[in-house]
Formats: sequence, C-alpha cells, structure tokens
Amino acid sequence: MAKKLGRSTYLFEKRPVILSSAAVGGEKERNGPLGKGFDFLDIDDTFGEKSWEQAENRMQQLAMKTALQKAHVKRNDLDLIFAGDLLNQCTGSSYGLKELGVPYLGLYGACSTMAEGLLMAGVYIDAGLAGKAAVSASSHFCSAERQYRFPLEYGSQRPPTSQWTATASAAVILGKKEDLPLDETVWVELVHASAGIIQDPLIRDANNMGAAMAPAAAALFMRYFRESSTAPQDYDRIFTGDLGQIGSELLYSLLARQNIRIGDRHNDCGLLLFDREHQDVHAGGSGAGCCGSVLSAYILPELRAGRLSNVLFLATGALFSPTMVQQGLSIPGIAHLVHLRRCERKEENGC
Amino acid sequence: MAKKLGRSTYLFEKRPVILSSAAVGGEKERNGPLGKGFDFLDIDDTFGEKSWEQAENRMQQLAMKTALQKAHVKRNDLDLIFAGDLLNQCTGSSYGLKELGVPYLGLYGACSTMAEGLLMAGVYIDAGLAGKAAVSASSHFCSAERQYRFPLEYGSQRPPTSQWTATASAAVILGKKEDLPLDETVWVELVHASAGIIQDPLIRDANNMGAAMAPAAAALFMRYFRESSTAPQDYDRIFTGDLGQIGSELLYSLLARQNIRIGDRHNDCGLLLFDREHQDVHAGGSGAGCCGSVLSAYILPELRAGRLSNVLFLATGALFSPTMVQQGLSIPGIAHLVHLRRCERKEENGC
Repeated sequence: MAKKLGRSTYLFEKRPVILSSAAVGGEKERNGPLGKGFDFLDIDDTFGEKSWEQAENRMQQLAMKTALQKAHVKRNDLDLIFAGDLLNQCTGSSYGLKELGVPYLGLYGACSTMAEGLLMAGVYIDAGLAGKAAVSASSHFCSAERQYRFPLEYGSQRPPTSQWTATASAAVILGKKEDLPLDETVWVELVHASAGIIQDPLIRDANNMGAAMAPAAAALFMRYFRESSTAPQDYDRIFTGDLGQIGSELLYSLLARQNIRIGDRHNDCGLLLFDREHQDVHAGGSGAGCCGSVLSAYILPELRAGRLSNVLFLATGALFSPTMVQQGLSIPGIAHLVHLRRCERKEENGC
Repeated sequence: MAKKLGRSTYLFEKRPVILSSAAVGGEKERNGPLGKGFDFLDIDDTFGEKSWEQAENRMQQLAMKTALQKAHVKRNDLDLIFAGDLLNQCTGSSYGLKELGVPYLGLYGACSTMAEGLLMAGVYIDAGLAGKAAVSASSHFCSAERQYRFPLEYGSQRPPTSQWTATASAAVILGKKEDLPLDETVWVELVHASAGIIQDPLIRDANNMGAAMAPAAAALFMRYFRESSTAPQDYDRIFTGDLGQIGSELLYSLLARQNIRIGDRHNDCGLLLFDREHQDVHAGGSGAGCCGSVLSAYILPELRAGRLSNVLFLATGALFSPTMVQQGLSIPGIAHLVHLRRCERKEENGC
C-alpha cells in the first residue's frame, strides 16, 4: 500500500507501471522537434471532423485506442479512466471516450491534468482498486483560442508572454508489473506522486499563463523535496509542463530564494514541443495535451532507451476561465507531480 | 485496505467517516421543503458579490468554512480537497477554495460531482493517503442559466421537461473513526462506492437532462447490485440526484426490464429540494449543488437521527456543453454512487 510521506506526497509501494502511451498531434506538432515521437499527426488538424471541438473529441479517442493497442489491453480489461481537458465542461474527454464503456472519473486540472491523472491512477492501482487504468488529456489550438481568447478569424495579435496551445492528446495505460509481457526487460514505474496547492500570484493577464502558474510549481517542488526527502540531484531530469520561457525563469528565481537550483537539469514541456526560433509560439507551448504528448513522445522513450532513469514530471495548470478574467479577477495556478523511474528486469532490487 | 468487488465497485475496509457537512443555498432553496436543513440561506442569491459567478465562488467558500467549523477541523489539518462545479473551467471551486491552502484535486463530474468526490475521498482515506479530506460542489441558477441556456433577462420559457438548477453548495469533511469526538455516539460512514460508465441515450434536448442521465443511473445500479452482492431491499432508502420526475420514471422502467424495483424506497434529490406543486421548477431540481445540499440538509440528518440507517446515494451528471449541443451532438450521462451507513458506538460490530 502506498505510504503517505507528507500532507499529499505518496510513495507507491507496488510501483504502478506504465504499460504504454500514445500521443496524437497536428501540423505544428509534426514540424516541432518531437514530431517523430508522435503516434499520429494530422495534416489539417481537423482529424476528419467538422468542428475544432469535435476534432478534439476524435483526438482523445484516437490517442486512447492507440495506447490500448500498444499495450495489447482490451478496453474491457480497463477498470478506470481518469480524463480531462480545457474545453468547457471537459467535452473533449467525455465525448472522445464515451464509446469505450469504461468506468470514468472526470478531472479538471487544466494543463496539469496529465499529472493529476497519473497520481490518481497510481493511487487506485497501488491500492488494488484498479487492475489497469488509463489517463487521458487533450487540447486543440483552434478550440482553445476561440473559447479562451478570440475567434481565429480575427487574426488577433499575441503578446510575447503568450503561449501556444498544443493541438495534442495523450493517453497512458497503467497497470502492475505482472501485467508486463514476460519478455519485457525495461519499463517505467511510478515511485512518488504529490498533489499541489492552488497559488494565486494575482496575475490578471490571460496572455501570461507562465507567470500565473510558476508559484504553484515552485511551492510544490519545495514541499515535495522536503516531504520525499529527496533533492534535485536525485533526478537526472526535472520536467515542468507548461511554464514556457517566462514561467521557467520565474520558477528558477522563486526556487533560488530557498536555495533550490534545478536549472542544470530542468526542461519545460512547452519549450520542448515547439522550436521557438522557427515556430511562432512566443513563450512556448501549453495546453492540457502539451505535457502529456511530450511525456509520450519524448520523456517515456528516453527513459526506456536508458538515456534517462529518474525523472520528475510536474504539470502546471491555470484554474481560470475567460469569464473570471473579464470580471477582473486574477488567475490561480496549480501543479501536481509524479516521479518516474526506469527499471530493468535484471536489476530487480529497488525496482 | 478497500476491497475491489468488481470492475469499479469498492468495499471500504476502514470505513471513512463523515465528520461534518454544510449546505448553503438561495431564496428558492429557503422556500423549499428542506430550507430548515441548510446552514446558510442568502436572501438575494448574490452572497454579497457583484456577479453570479462570484456568488458561486463565495458559496463554495462559505460551505467549506462552515463544514470545517462544524467538524472542529482546521484547514491546515485537511490533506486534500476534491471539488468541482458546472461553471466553465470549474471556477466556482478553484476561486472559492483557493484561499484555503489545501492540496486540491479538481474534478469534473457535472451534477455527479458530490458522489464522485465522496468516492475519491473514501479511497484516499481508506488507503491511508489522506487523514482528513473534503469534498465540495456547487451550482447557481443564475450563472448556470446564462452559461448553458439564455441570459436571465431574456425571460425565455422553459419546457416541462426542464429542471431548475439549484443555487446551492455543499461541503463534506471526511476522516477516520478515530477523528470523531469521544462523546460522539452516532456517525455516518462510507461502506461501498462505485464509479459509473458513460451512457449516451442520444438525447439532443438540453432541456431534458433527466432522460439523458437515467440510463447511466440504471446501468450503475444494475452493476453495483451485482458486484456488491446486495439488492434494493438491503437499503432503507435509495437516493438519486438529480433525475427529476422524468428521469426517475425512466429509471424505474429501465430497471424493471431487469426485474429490479426501487420505486418503494427511492427518492430523487431534485424532487426533494423543491416543491413542484408550489415552486415553478418543472421536472425538479438539478445542478452540482442540488444532491450535495440534499445530502447535507436532509439525508445525513435523517441518518444521524436514526430514521434511516442504510442509504444509497447515486448522483448523475450530464457530461455535455452548450457548444456540443449547438453542434447537434447528443448528451452523454454518467453516475457514481456511495453506500452510507449509520453507526452507533454501542453496537460496534459491523460498524
């Protein structure tokens, strides 16, 4: 049974295992540095649908079906799905996954959804309450822009602090070590997870999400290192998603005040997914599909290949709505994290 | 540790205990049959705020603070909050609860949020991953109407199938039996919980939520009774929230096909909160705050008073958005349930 190390930091005893993952994306994601890691990339971002919202539904469905196939898991063998997205009432998830017939626990964590879902799936699997569980999250640049900002047809200018919502969906299938094929010698397991506290740095600019989310990330890192009795040096890479350039710099300065330095081993998913020099994404990528697709297209493959072995994956979310910003309120941020570890069958001890 | 009885049905071993609950509501809730059970009822539904959305934030804050006071629990002693609502991006929860400084896991279950949250809090407490946890949900008639249908100022007519979104928020504090005051002789504990599967009966009418949600309720009841090896007769009352009149009748007929009859012991929270004869609510009440406030204002007091002892609380949600309905898509429904039991200290066996 998982051990409670602090207020909301857990050490998984049975080490839930990532059985597979899948990422689907659009044209901009294809042209980004991680394009080759995606399982499917659409040529016109419509995914064959008539509206951007329905395209997002289709993306979640496609990512989940692909992840199930890759793990050789039938949908009837899945005990739970944890899913969420940025669309009003999280319809990317509910419409995208409704045909599966799997017990469904809907989440709202904005861009932190993938980490929130991994934490939850880990808890249920570790407690023996789910055999296999899935996590799913998505975002679509076009459905997000018209919902959060302006219709694309306006062609509004974006300030340098703004981030580019990824057109991406990712699904992850989790289970127990016994669910791995016998000839599988390498896998990735969940070691720790930690649920974050909402922080409100009083940012009122809906085009500066990085600044709104950085304090939540900093607060969670500080608490997590303390509660897990670990330090940045215990991880060979620390990923955030999706602070972008401005949020990442703010994170460094907030952590530096507590003498915590992660800059030498930190990457932000929003800065990995796109090439800021050649793709017009301003402060970087964002969206609930961004860090999930980077996890599937880059972080998990790097872990399996042995180029990484201990990774922190902290996802941030801005828990606001356009209505709240229009009414002059500030934008609260949240963060959740999981610690992922590479395991090899030959060195069973510790794994 | 909780036992997995079926695909997503759990028997809690440590029996998480409800330490307190609170419900706040508005003018219509005050005039309804359960008005006296509320902890606070506002006279003009604004809760002192300038907008309906901000009124909803304030309601969540007020319900949570009241529930914490009633349980004599300090916010720093709360390990987790599970919360959600109907507003775009669930801002009633995030803005209402952001000052508390408690680890926060956001949910989206529409009107099923209270049951989804109770299930989750039960899992975390039973697994020892939270000492005390809280669940919170809300809805506001005025913020919901303008978001889902029309601005109130239009004065649009509502069809007989429509339901009235409750202006209500409820918070529940859960913990372990050891957290109860020593002189507490009666309490309510969670025995079972079950997570539902999305069902889509192809309803396209956003004014007929009862019909959209009844199949999800029926499917979960059937599976729950089978997986928990219980029958309707094992419960002295079975509550649904919020099917209303039309959804309740549909539920009876769907269950009758499987020879399951609950009509003699069933109540719907949407039919309890308002008086359909004297209050203009058409098919009954609804909203994420409806079944939660009925739980706090009526079901839990009845359990503590000994007039009820074994209760099923199944909450339903319609996982749609206005955008999806405007694009011609149907409305999928979901349901989650918890089994609540009254316990007395003198008869410890079984409790």
